Amino acid sequence: MNAMALITAKEGELGDKAIIVGNIQRMKTVVQLLENPKLVSEFAGYTTYVGTYKGEKVSVVFHGIGIPSLTLVTHDLYNLGVRKIVRFGSATGLKDVKAGEVVVPIGYSYNIGGTFYQYLGEYFSYALTPDYELLNKVVENLKKKNLSVRVGIVYTSDALMTHSKEFLEKVSARNHIAIELEGAGLYFLGNLLNFKALSVHLIYRNGLTGDSLTQDKINEEEKIIAQAILESL
Amino acid sequence: MNAMALITAKEGELGDKAIIVGNIQRMKTVVQLLENPKLVSEFAGYTTYVGTYKGEKVSVVFHGIGIPSLTLVTHDLYNLGVRKIVRFGSATGLKDVKAGEVVVPIGYSYNIGGTFYQYLGEYFSYALTPDYELLNKVVENLKKKNLSVRVGIVYTSDALMTHSKEFLEKVSARNHIAIELEGAGLYFLGNLLNFKALSVHLIYRNGLTGDSLTQDKINEEEKIIAQAILESL
Amino acid sequence: MNAMALITAKEGELGDKAIIVGNIQRMKTVVQLLENPKLVSEFAGYTTYVGTYKGEKVSVVFHGIGIPSLTLVTHDLYNLGVRKIVRFGSATGLKDVKAGEVVVPIGYSYNIGGTFYQYLGEYFSYALTPDYELLNKVVENLKKKNLSVRVGIVYTSDALMTHSKEFLEKVSARNHIAIELEGAGLYFLGNLLNFKALSVHLIYRNGLTGDSLTQDKINEEEKIIAQAILESL
Amino acid sequence: MNAMALITAKEGELGDKAIIVGNIQRMKTVVQLLENPKLVSEFAGYTTYVGTYKGEKVSVVFHGIGIPSLTLVTHDLYNLGVRKIVRFGSATGLKDVKAGEVVVPIGYSYNIGGTFYQYLGEYFSYALTPDYELLNKVVENLKKKNLSVRVGIVYTSDALMTHSKEFLEKVSARNHIAIELEGAGLYFLGNLLNFKALSVHLIYRNGLTGDSLTQDKINEEEKIIAQAILESL
Amino acid sequence: MNAMALITAKEGELGDKAIIVGNIQRMKTVVQLLENPKLVSEFAGYTTYVGTYKGEKVSVVFHGIGIPSLTLVTHDLYNLGVRKIVRFGSATGLKDVKAGEVVVPIGYSYNIGGTFYQYLGEYFSYALTPDYELLNKVVENLKKKNLSVRVGIVYTSDALMTHSKEFLEKVSARNHIAIELEGAGLYFLGNLLNFKALSVHLIYRNGLTGDSLTQDKINEEEKIIAQAILESL
Amino acid sequence: MNAMALITAKEGELGDKAIIVGNIQRMKTVVQLLENPKLVSEFAGYTTYVGTYKGEKVSVVFHGIGIPSLTLVTHDLYNLGVRKIVRFGSATGLKDVKAGEVVVPIGYSYNIGGTFYQYLGEYFSYALTPDYELLNKVVENLKKKNLSVRVGIVYTSDALMTHSKEFLEKVSARNHIAIELEGAGLYFLGNLLNFKALSVHLIYRNGLTGDSLTQDKINEEEKIIAQAILESL
Repeated sequence: MNAMALITAKEGELGDKAIIVGNIQRMKTVVQLLENPKLVSEFAGYTTYVGTYKGEKVSVVFHGIGIPSLTLVTHDLYNLGVRKIVRFGSATGLKDVKAGEVVVPIGYSYNIGGTFYQYLGEYFSYALTPDYELLNKVVENLKKKNLSVRVGIVYTSDALMTHSKEFLEKVSARNHIAIELEGAGLYFLGNLLNFKALSVHLIYRNGLTGDSLTQDKINEEEKIIAQAILESL
Repeated sequence: MNAMALITAKEGELGDKAIIVGNIQRMKTVVQLLENPKLVSEFAGYTTYVGTYKGEKVSVVFHGIGIPSLTLVTHDLYNLGVRKIVRFGSATGLKDVKAGEVVVPIGYSYNIGGTFYQYLGEYFSYALTPDYELLNKVVENLKKKNLSVRVGIVYTSDALMTHSKEFLEKVSARNHIAIELEGAGLYFLGNLLNFKALSVHLIYRNGLTGDSLTQDKINEEEKIIAQAILESL
Repeated sequence: MNAMALITAKEGELGDKAIIVGNIQRMKTVVQLLENPKLVSEFAGYTTYVGTYKGEKVSVVFHGIGIPSLTLVTHDLYNLGVRKIVRFGSATGLKDVKAGEVVVPIGYSYNIGGTFYQYLGEYFSYALTPDYELLNKVVENLKKKNLSVRVGIVYTSDALMTHSKEFLEKVSARNHIAIELEGAGLYFLGNLLNFKALSVHLIYRNGLTGDSLTQDKINEEEKIIAQAILESL
Repeated sequence: MNAMALITAKEGELGDKAIIVGNIQRMKTVVQLLENPKLVSEFAGYTTYVGTYKGEKVSVVFHGIGIPSLTLVTHDLYNLGVRKIVRFGSATGLKDVKAGEVVVPIGYSYNIGGTFYQYLGEYFSYALTPDYELLNKVVENLKKKNLSVRVGIVYTSDALMTHSKEFLEKVSARNHIAIELEGAGLYFLGNLLNFKALSVHLIYRNGLTGDSLTQDKINEEEKIIAQAILESL
Repeated sequence: MNAMALITAKEGELGDKAIIVGNIQRMKTVVQLLENPKLVSEFAGYTTYVGTYKGEKVSVVFHGIGIPSLTLVTHDLYNLGVRKIVRFGSATGLKDVKAGEVVVPIGYSYNIGGTFYQYLGEYFSYALTPDYELLNKVVENLKKKNLSVRVGIVYTSDALMTHSKEFLEKVSARNHIAIELEGAGLYFLGNLLNFKALSVHLIYRNGLTGDSLTQDKINEEEKIIAQAILESL
Repeated sequence: MNAMALITAKEGELGDKAIIVGNIQRMKTVVQLLENPKLVSEFAGYTTYVGTYKGEKVSVVFHGIGIPSLTLVTHDLYNLGVRKIVRFGSATGLKDVKAGEVVVPIGYSYNIGGTFYQYLGEYFSYALTPDYELLNKVVENLKKKNLSVRVGIVYTSDALMTHSKEFLEKVSARNHIAIELEGAGLYFLGNLLNFKALSVHLIYRNGLTGDSLTQDKINEEEKIIAQAILESL
C-alpha cells in the first residue's frame, strides 16, 4: 500500500493501544483521563492524542463518520503499529435496549459492497466479530462499574437518513440490539489484519421508543465507560 | 409456515435444550451420556433422541450435511419449543490450529445467497454469532477439562469438493481458524428466531499441514467435549 | 481436490451407475430390487449399497437434505467413477400437478450463491438440465408403467421453512411444476463435470391444494418408479 | 402493460405459431417455404410475414440482436396471441461441435441482471428450458433429414466483442456446446408467460477450431432445417 | 478480440464520425442530408451508409434494439476507426418532459449485469457519461434551431414490456427525465474504449401523461435535429 | 425521516447555497472569502459557517471522509433548505492528469451496495451526474482564472488503503481521470433529491507518476478555485 496516511505520526509514536472515537466531545472525555496527553497529529479535521494510562502509552484518535472514514483511520493506526483498538461510540438502541445501557457488539451486520468489496475483491459475508479476550475483559470492567451491559448483534448502517421508523423496526425484528454507522469497519479490519478490536456503544436513545439521555447524563456516563475501557487495555 | 417437519415428535416432547450433530457416531457418544435416552423420531435418515442429564431433558438430533439440512432440522426444533441449541461437530483447522484443539466460533463467515436469501429476501451480511453467555459457559467448561480451546471466526463452506489447497490458504489468510459445512446455519437461525445457539468443533485435522487425529483419539476426546457441553446446558 | 470423501468405497467398486435418494425408506425400496445388494460404505449417517440389475452393477446412495449435501455425495460418486446418476426423490407439486404424478425436471431454477458460487467463482446463471437421452428413456419407461408423467421446470429451494402459501404461489406463478430441496445440485454437477444426470420426483402432495398421497400409495408407486429407473440405466 | 408494440399487426392476425429469426437472409429462406406469404408489419427495421404451411397459419418474424431485442419481439407476439415460437438461428460451436451440426438447446446459461432482473424484480437463476414435446418433435424431424443434431446447453452472451479465445475456452470447459446472443430470452419468456418455445441453431463455425461453413452450404442447410421446423409446428 | 463483425466495411472506409440510429425511417432522414451517400454494408438486417457532410466523411449506422445490439455495432465501428459517435434516437419522456422536447443525457442509469458484467468482469457502477465538448456543441446547435433541449439523466431499460405505469412512476421519481432501451451501451463503450460519444433523444410521448407527437411532426423535427447533429460533428 | 441531524442550525438559517469541504484547512480558505462569516453549528467535529458573498448567503460545511459521512451532511443541508451544493475537494489524478490541474467530474463511478443500497432498496446503477448549468458555469469561471480544467469521469473509492499501484492502474485503464473518496455521494443525492450539485477537485498528485504539489502551491491555488466557485453560485 502506498496510500497517503491521515495520521502524521511516526511508526511507534502511538504505542500499540488506541481508543477511537467519532465525536470530539467524547474524545476530550477520554484524553482527560490520560497522563501527559499530547496532540501528535492533526490533519483535515482528524486529530490524534497520545498519553499514558498507568504507565502504558495509549492513543486517542478521531475516526469521523461512516465505514470508509473509520477504516481509513484504523488501517492507518495498524500501519503505525497499533494492535489493540477499542472504539468508544454511541448508538441508537433497538428492541428493549434503554438509553443509558451499554451495548458491546459480539458481531456486526452490514451491507455488502463498498469498503468490504474493495478489500476482499468479492461479495462475501465476512464474520465481523471482536477479540474474545478483550470482549470479556471490557464487559467485566463495565459491569464492575454497575453499568447495564448488553452483548448482542448491532447493525452498521451506511445511511442515517434512511432510518425511518419502518426501517428501524425491520432491523430490530432481526434482533439487532442497536444501530450505528461505523463499527462494522473496525471488526472487519480487526479480523482481516489480525489485531484485537472491540466496540463499546453508549445508547443515547432508543430508536423505537424515543427514550433518551440528557447531555449531562451522557457526559457523566461516558467518563465512567472511558475509565473501564482504559482499565481493560 | 405450513411446511412439513422432519422431526415427528410433538411440541414439548423434546424439552428446551438440544445438542445437534452431523455424524451418527458422535450422536451415540452424546446419547450414551444421557439417562434414559429414547429414540423419539426417525424420518428419512434423521433421528432424534431424548434423555435427561442431571434431571433436565436434553434432545440429541442428527442434522445432516450443509446449511439447508441443518437449518431445516434446527427450525423444526425451534417450532417444537427448543430454545438452547449446541451444535457439536468437527471442522478442518486452518492457520496454526492443531488436530485435537477445540474451536468455538465467535462468528461464522458464509457465502451470500441460498438459505440466507430465502429467509431474508435480500442480500445482506447478517451477523452470525452465538449467545454470549452460552459461549462463556461452554468455553469455561471445556477449559476445565484441560482441552485446548480456540475462540475465533470460522468459515462455513457450501462445497467441500472445492477445498483445494489454494482455497484453504485464502480462507486461512483471512484469519479463519477453521472451515466446516453447517455452522453458519445455526447461528443464523439463533439470531433471526432469537434462541441461544453455540457451536463446538473438534479439529480432526489441519487442512494446510495435514496433521490429524486417530479415530481412537477422536472418540476419546468427543466424549469429554460432550460432557462439557452437557454440563453447560 | 484433496477433500475428505463421504463414501469409503474404492474407485471402481461402485460401477458407473447410481441411483441416489434422500430418504432411507426409499433407499430400501430400490435396494430390494437389486440382486445381491451389499452395504459397501457407511459414514456419518450416509450409506451406499451396491448390487446388480440385469447383470449390471448399480449403486444406491443416500444423499441427505439440501444442495451442499447432495453435491458432496454426488461429486464423491463422480470421483469414484460413476458417470450416470439418477436421483429418485419426492417433491411438492405446484400449479395443477397432483399427488401421485411423477415430475421429471427438464431444468431447475435455483438461488444464486452458495454451492454454485464456490464452484464457479462468480454469480452466473448456469443452465441446470438433464442428459437428454436419459430423460427420454426414463420418461418412456415411466409412461409404459401407466404413470402420469410431467416434464417441466422445478425450483430447488434452500429453506423449506420459508415455504409459506404466498411463497409457493409466487413459485407456481413462474410456472414451476414442483418445488424440492436438492435437484439443482445434481444437474449442476452433471453439466459441470460432464456426466449423465436425471431426477425423478414423486409428488407426495400439492403445496397449494393440500391434495396428498397415503404412505401405502407412496410405497407402492415408488416401487414401480424404481423399476422404471433401473430399466433405463 | 401499456408499452408500445414493435409489431403493428392486430391480435389474431398472426395465428398461434411463429418462427423468429435474427437474420434477414434466413427470414427469406423460411418465408419462401410458406404459401401466400404476406408482409404484415414493418417497423423500425423489424418485419413480420404471415403465410400458411400445410393449411396452418405461420408467422415469420425478425428479432434482431441481443436478449432485449428478442424479448421485446417475443412478448409482442405473445400479446398478439402466438403460443408456439421456434427461434431459428445460428451459433458458434464449442467443445467438439462442428460447423454444419445443428444445436438444439435443452437449456441456456446466461448472465444475471438486465432483462431478467426487470421481469423478476430479483436476482434469481430461473430455469431456461424449451417445451419438451416441441423439443422432441423438432429433434426427430431434424434427424429424419439426416442432419447431425446435438442437444445440450448453450450460453447466451450479452457481448460478442468480449469473446476472446480465453473466454470461449472457459465457456466450453463448462460444457456449453455453443454460444450465441439471444436464445435465453426466448426460453425465459416461454417459461414465464407459459407458451411453447424452442431454439434451433445451425453452427456456422466452431469458435475454438475456426472450422466453418461456406455461405452456399449455409443456405442449403438452412432450407432443410426450416423445412423440419415447419413440419414440427 | 477475434469476434465476427456485423459491419462488412474495411477499416478506414467509414471515416471517424458516425451517427447511429435504431429506426430505419430515421436512418433515411439522416442519410438524405449527406452528399453522395452510399450503402457500404448490409448484413443480417443491419445497414451502414457513408456520405459526406461539408466535405467530411460521416457514416450512418443502424444499431437495432437493446444494449447488446447497440454495443456490438458500436464496438464494430470503433474497431473500424470511428472515434466520434452520436446516437440519434427517440425516448419516452418522464417527469414534466413533453413530447417534442429533445433530451440530451448527461448520464444513463442502467441495470447491473449483462453486457456490463461481460466487459468488466465484475459488478461495478461504471459512470456512463458523454464527451463534454460534444455535449456542449450539440446542445448549443440544437438550441440555435429553437428546439426545447433538456439535459438530464436517462434510464436505459432492458425490457420495454415491463414498463407499467407503476414502473415508470418509480423511474420518474428518481428524477430520470426519460427512459429508453440502448443509450447506456453507447456511453459505456465511449468511456471504456475512450471515444467521443453522445446521445440525442426526441421525445415521442410522455410515458406518464400520454402526451404524444404525430408522425408528421416527428419527421419534421427529426430532420432539424439531424441537421444540428451533423453540424456538430 | 426522524433521524438525528449533524447540523444544529435551523431551517432557513443556512441560505440555499453551500460549499462543502472535507479538510479543515480548505474550509478556512473558503470562509475567509466570505463577508461576516459566522460559525453556526459545531457538532461531533463537524462545523458549519455562514457568511455572504456579493450579498448572497453562502454556507461552508465540513463533510468528513467517505460517502456515508458526506451523504449524511448533505442530506442534512437539503433538509435545512439548501438547494445548490458545490463540493470543493482534492483528488488523486490518474491517466495524464497532472498535479495542479482541476478535475470537474461529469460523472462518478462507484461500488454498488452500502449507502446506495440503503437509499434505493435494490442494486441499481444510478447515474451520478452534476447539474449541467452549474457544471458549465463553474468550468467557465475556472478557465477564466487560467486554471487547467479537466472534465471527465472520476471513481469514488470506499477504501483508500486498497489503492495499490495495480489497483490505480486498473481504475485508470477504465479512463477515470481521478480517484477520491466522497464525490459519488453528492451526485447521488443531487439526482435523487433533485438539487443542484457539482464537485471540483484540485489534483494534489498523480497516483501513477507521483508528480505532486507543494503545500504552498495548494494553498495558493485553492484560494483561486474557491473564488471561482463562489462567483458561480
